[in-house]
Amino acid sequence: MSSTDPVRSRSAASSAGPPAFGPHPDRFFDPDPSVRRVARDIYARTKDLPLICPHGHVDPAMLAENAPFPEPTALIFTRDHYIVRMLYSRGVRMESVGIPTRDGAPTEQDPRKVWQLFGDHYYLLRGTPTAAWLEQEFADVFGVRAPMNGANAMAIYDEIVEKLASPEFLPRALFERFRIEVLATTDKASDRLLAHQAIRASGWSGRVVPTFRPDAVFRVATPGWHDEIGALAAASGTAITDFASLLAALAQQRRYFRSLGATASDHAVVEPYTEWLEPADTQRLFERAQRGECTDADQRRFEAHMLMEMARMSLDDGLVMQLHPGSLRDHNAIIAGRFGPDTGCDIPVPTEYTRNLQALLNRFGNDPRLTLVLFTLDESTYARELAPLAGHYPALRLGPPWWFHDSIEGMTRFRHAVTETAGFYNTAGFNDDTRAFCSIPARHDLARRVDANFLAGLVARHVMDITAAHEVAHALAYGLAKETYKFGDTESPA
Amino acid sequence: MSSTDPVRSRSAASSAGPPAFGPHPDRFFDPDPSVRRVARDIYARTKDLPLICPHGHVDPAMLAENAPFPEPTALIFTRDHYIVRMLYSRGVRMESVGIPTRDGAPTEQDPRKVWQLFGDHYYLLRGTPTAAWLEQEFADVFGVRAPMNGANAMAIYDEIVEKLASPEFLPRALFERFRIEVLATTDKASDRLLAHQAIRASGWSGRVVPTFRPDAVFRVATPGWHDEIGALAAASGTAITDFASLLAALAQQRRYFRSLGATASDHAVVEPYTEWLEPADTQRLFERAQRGECTDADQRRFEAHMLMEMARMSLDDGLVMQLHPGSLRDHNAIIAGRFGPDTGCDIPVPTEYTRNLQALLNRFGNDPRLTLVLFTLDESTYARELAPLAGHYPALRLGPPWWFHDSIEGMTRFRHAVTETAGFYNTAGFNDDTRAFCSIPARHDLARRVDANFLAGLVARHVMDITAAHEVAHALAYGLAKETYKFGDTESPA
Amino acid sequence: MSSTDPVRSRSAASSAGPPAFGPHPDRFFDPDPSVRRVARDIYARTKDLPLICPHGHVDPAMLAENAPFPEPTALIFTRDHYIVRMLYSRGVRMESVGIPTRDGAPTEQDPRKVWQLFGDHYYLLRGTPTAAWLEQEFADVFGVRAPMNGANAMAIYDEIVEKLASPEFLPRALFERFRIEVLATTDKASDRLLAHQAIRASGWSGRVVPTFRPDAVFRVATPGWHDEIGALAAASGTAITDFASLLAALAQQRRYFRSLGATASDHAVVEPYTEWLEPADTQRLFERAQRGECTDADQRRFEAHMLMEMARMSLDDGLVMQLHPGSLRDHNAIIAGRFGPDTGCDIPVPTEYTRNLQALLNRFGNDPRLTLVLFTLDESTYARELAPLAGHYPALRLGPPWWFHDSIEGMTRFRHAVTETAGFYNTAGFNDDTRAFCSIPARHDLARRVDANFLAGLVARHVMDITAAHEVAHALAYGLAKETYKFGDTESPA
Repeated sequence: MSSTDPVRSRSAASSAGPPAFGPHPDRFFDPDPSVRRVARDIYARTKDLPLICPHGHVDPAMLAENAPFPEPTALIFTRDHYIVRMLYSRGVRMESVGIPTRDGAPTEQDPRKVWQLFGDHYYLLRGTPTAAWLEQEFADVFGVRAPMNGANAMAIYDEIVEKLASPEFLPRALFERFRIEVLATTDKASDRLLAHQAIRASGWSGRVVPTFRPDAVFRVATPGWHDEIGALAAASGTAITDFASLLAALAQQRRYFRSLGATASDHAVVEPYTEWLEPADTQRLFERAQRGECTDADQRRFEAHMLMEMARMSLDDGLVMQLHPGSLRDHNAIIAGRFGPDTGCDIPVPTEYTRNLQALLNRFGNDPRLTLVLFTLDESTYARELAPLAGHYPALRLGPPWWFHDSIEGMTRFRHAVTETAGFYNTAGFNDDTRAFCSIPARHDLARRVDANFLAGLVARHVMDITAAHEVAHALAYGLAKETYKFGDTESPA
Repeated sequence: MSSTDPVRSRSAASSAGPPAFGPHPDRFFDPDPSVRRVARDIYARTKDLPLICPHGHVDPAMLAENAPFPEPTALIFTRDHYIVRMLYSRGVRMESVGIPTRDGAPTEQDPRKVWQLFGDHYYLLRGTPTAAWLEQEFADVFGVRAPMNGANAMAIYDEIVEKLASPEFLPRALFERFRIEVLATTDKASDRLLAHQAIRASGWSGRVVPTFRPDAVFRVATPGWHDEIGALAAASGTAITDFASLLAALAQQRRYFRSLGATASDHAVVEPYTEWLEPADTQRLFERAQRGECTDADQRRFEAHMLMEMARMSLDDGLVMQLHPGSLRDHNAIIAGRFGPDTGCDIPVPTEYTRNLQALLNRFGNDPRLTLVLFTLDESTYARELAPLAGHYPALRLGPPWWFHDSIEGMTRFRHAVTETAGFYNTAGFNDDTRAFCSIPARHDLARRVDANFLAGLVARHVMDITAAHEVAHALAYGLAKETYKFGDTESPA
Repeated sequence: MSSTDPVRSRSAASSAGPPAFGPHPDRFFDPDPSVRRVARDIYARTKDLPLICPHGHVDPAMLAENAPFPEPTALIFTRDHYIVRMLYSRGVRMESVGIPTRDGAPTEQDPRKVWQLFGDHYYLLRGTPTAAWLEQEFADVFGVRAPMNGANAMAIYDEIVEKLASPEFLPRALFERFRIEVLATTDKASDRLLAHQAIRASGWSGRVVPTFRPDAVFRVATPGWHDEIGALAAASGTAITDFASLLAALAQQRRYFRSLGATASDHAVVEPYTEWLEPADTQRLFERAQRGECTDADQRRFEAHMLMEMARMSLDDGLVMQLHPGSLRDHNAIIAGRFGPDTGCDIPVPTEYTRNLQALLNRFGNDPRLTLVLFTLDESTYARELAPLAGHYPALRLGPPWWFHDSIEGMTRFRHAVTETAGFYNTAGFNDDTRAFCSIPARHDLARRVDANFLAGLVARHVMDITAAHEVAHALAYGLAKETYKFGDTESPA
């Protein structure tokens, strides 16, 4: 930090008396004593519940191999697009963070130099959930006892390096230490699930299950579609020559995923449009895709119909359907072109649910065999569309606040906006949605604290009594995720 | 509840020590002592004010006949789509709740069995305004002293049955006990208002007035339009043969409604689009409607023009115009088809006001003879469009939070979003908008508490002084509804 | 106030014991003691920082001439469309407020009569930021010791008249008393900036700089376009005969503005659409404009391209680009027609940023030479679009809450909605955006209080430590505005 940096100019003066470090036991609770007291009480009963992780992006190979994590920079910083985007937004170049380029152009290779940059710019994360997660992860997972900043960065790096070398920090040991009851990964429709097979074959008792995500085979207007179809055909052992055989291959792979424990599918679209097409239409679209002639409008209708087909298959095989609409991927063509997807340049767009989902909900939404979990990046839909829909259709549940809204304020807004119309019992509990394995406990802890605090507010305002609040807190922290995603026996563990 | 239900698993343990029951005297107030103290003070001065009920759906025949209410299930549960939808959303079948089918297919007929289902699933309402209203209704109207749940349901049922048999629970006795100063019903344009006539003829002093709601005759693309026109012609004694005679019939019925005390009209459209059509256009649309040829686009323009005509008539006859846009009715075709409208499957859509209302406001919005009360189901319009519009056009007032937003959080968000731009005096006070007669006092009480609490927050943060807060609280609880809806003498009652 | 006015009926009773008057030292702080204590501590360190005013509408001629302000009504009331619109919305005629008509039709000329109307209706402003600003302006700038109302209005008027006559109330004396470090005005592209030249020539040390606002020359579909082009040609000394010479004239005027201290341009459009047109297209549009043939669709594309050109020029000349989209100007044609623009009838519309800005951001958003400050009147975009965009693109900063949202609640919502995704350091500090010169200190003070309170809430909930909060508060109150708008040396003044 330069002393002439106007936005940091108070640092020198105020760093004279550094504050005590470490996550505070009352963090995220309302300071009003009558709320905080109840929040502590509620949280005390949920904080040690096992973690249900029904949606996330952890690489299962990590748990299949159970090899030591190599070093902190890749584990904690470089792959976390929440952090990378924040540094990039204030002028740190992607190359200097060591993000690999698609064309192999050189980028910073020294993880210690990159970690120092992380420390230097850590202050940019102030007030973000990432800072809250990292503070707890550093303290509780790695035992770090100093605040992360430019001065402490290398000492913290060395401390974590040392920890990672010990057996207690192997992936499976952490999985157990984190008390993960079940962890779902996210896998392409054509995935052979070799890591999942290896985990099962290893005799290890950790429950890791795949999730069926067939988006790529629905994107008929994209150049990669043929390869995706080829991969799906190979994986399913089904020749895909027409629309009917595509459906057969998908059904076959859903069966395969289920055989390895999958309980859910997941679907990402820009717009959650649904429409039931006649067989002649779907076959025609398939043929156009085969000839590489599909337009974006064709893809929109194809995806709309495929969501209907997925719901129909769920009636048979019971997979819980998740819908994640509203992200415009790779908004920054330069960054996406040079560094690939998931580098922090996906930007939300306004999303409409009422009219878009009407076809699907009229056809399948009254059927108790379907569970459809809706997510959004457009909070204006919480009270306007999502809560009224979930408060009516038996098939619907609202997923927890997603991505940019997976945060203290985001979760609080979600509860305030949806509870009065949808209640608590049409929500789906928490999921951490992360590829940052070591952040999982911090993310669940934050959610449990925020929900405890929300409930404490209701108790303190005499909207709900404490007995009901305890029961709801347990459901939000554990029961609803387990029930929604059909994770087996329903006995409470504690 | 099964003990293996994961979302209820804490019930057994925590039900050991049941909490004291009954609405708390400080309910809905901020727990901070400096806010709560002021909230109590403000609320103490508004809580006993008479109830102005300028918009709602109570059946006037109930007050004309003044017969005992038959039994609790129909009175409190089955007709309340807020409750029915919540049970349906978690898998309770409409048939088992006894909702009558349109084709006469059998449904549960035993009100005690249905009431038991209500008790069993009462926990689903936790955190909703319905639970808050019911808690107060049970305690204050019916004297129930135990919490509603599966175990207590039948005892509560019997207790209410007993009460309903006594003269103190006849509709008019409750109307007086509730201190209702005026109650507006909602009535079709062709309604003969026989119940209103009967109330007037009975010599009873209760003030019950109709509201003119002509939506059905504007829906030129719907199959029922011809019948609606026929009914209007019969009621008004006017042959409706062209657009001009349609206007004459409407004006005639407005006069008739006014003769029975009406001070307002009410209009529901999906989109609040307005446009002034030339006479040739309106006549052409009328003729197309007569031939059954109108499209949805035709209806959109026809409705847009009829809103203009209604505003124009209001300049002459003084009826306050209410606009309730943005609900997509009967979203669930299966449920609407089997059980009819108003069964919980109306879902909001995004709504635009700035451009849609420009034609009407430019023509009539500067005229002091018009009062137009705007409602919304799209909260994103509060600060963006509605408050700026109401903070400028003399004709505009903002109606209270509607439907899904008629709640603690919804009202709080409304005040936070609109006050800084529209002030308090461009809002229209509270209305209960209910068909659940016995919930009326609880609904007004909740609104008075939330407004007292909002004002107390401003006082505690020194945004407003306590003298002003008292004055504003009185206006919000009583004066603004009375003034906006032109309910006669403006003397304060207390 | 009539005693029969239902919305004021409590006045008489409660005015018996008038409250102590004057802005409270703890105003706008959360009443919870653990938050308020920290808020006071944070605010104590920012309240006396100099004022950076990078965007506003003060008339520079006032500071060039440094003549006494004539009288209070014009200075404080009539030109403030926030106040005028509120009175108009409750039935006060524009003519009786003395707003000049475009056709010269007579309006009230006696400023004392108009001021009395202001006092009579001052209660309408309760709960608005205008009331908060005025309370502080009356007390701190003019030393008024009584609440503004109908009874006190004339005494307050006379008190201010007396003050305005003294040298301490000359514009430059106030500028210095207000501790304004820099004040940016807003000026048409063709402005000769004579007042700015005069200020420089006067030897006075106050820093007053222009801002380049070329909107009018981009509006190719409006009748005034030819005159605007003529004025620009004259001012720049450049014949504008084709699109290339238009660009040259704009670049020349940007240089001229920079020579007088400008560091920024400002751009208002209804929709923030951007698109890069080919030279043949821009030349064709220019020719259509010359022939007066441009449609609204033509203007939309022309404006979209001109935003791109402005960004491109900023890479060269370093002007910070400000974008203020989403206001539908002159919604009320009757009022705008009779009284002209900026009379309180501009109404926001829903605004989309993700897709609209993609062209500009892909072309220039990764370039560190560009700073683009985004504003909005559509709060639903804060968390959905603006924070994700600003949390990624290096060129982007989020401007402070604008216009209707420049308020206690508006600023609070802004911080809650954007901080978790964009952090604090992708926001641009505060600007007062006012033409009401005497309200400037109150506006900055309100912003500093709200930010201190927001940060105090984070500290009290242990989201951030107090050392970081102090540093962030300094950046929000001073450093970020100075840095974003490139106001020279970056040393902290305190």
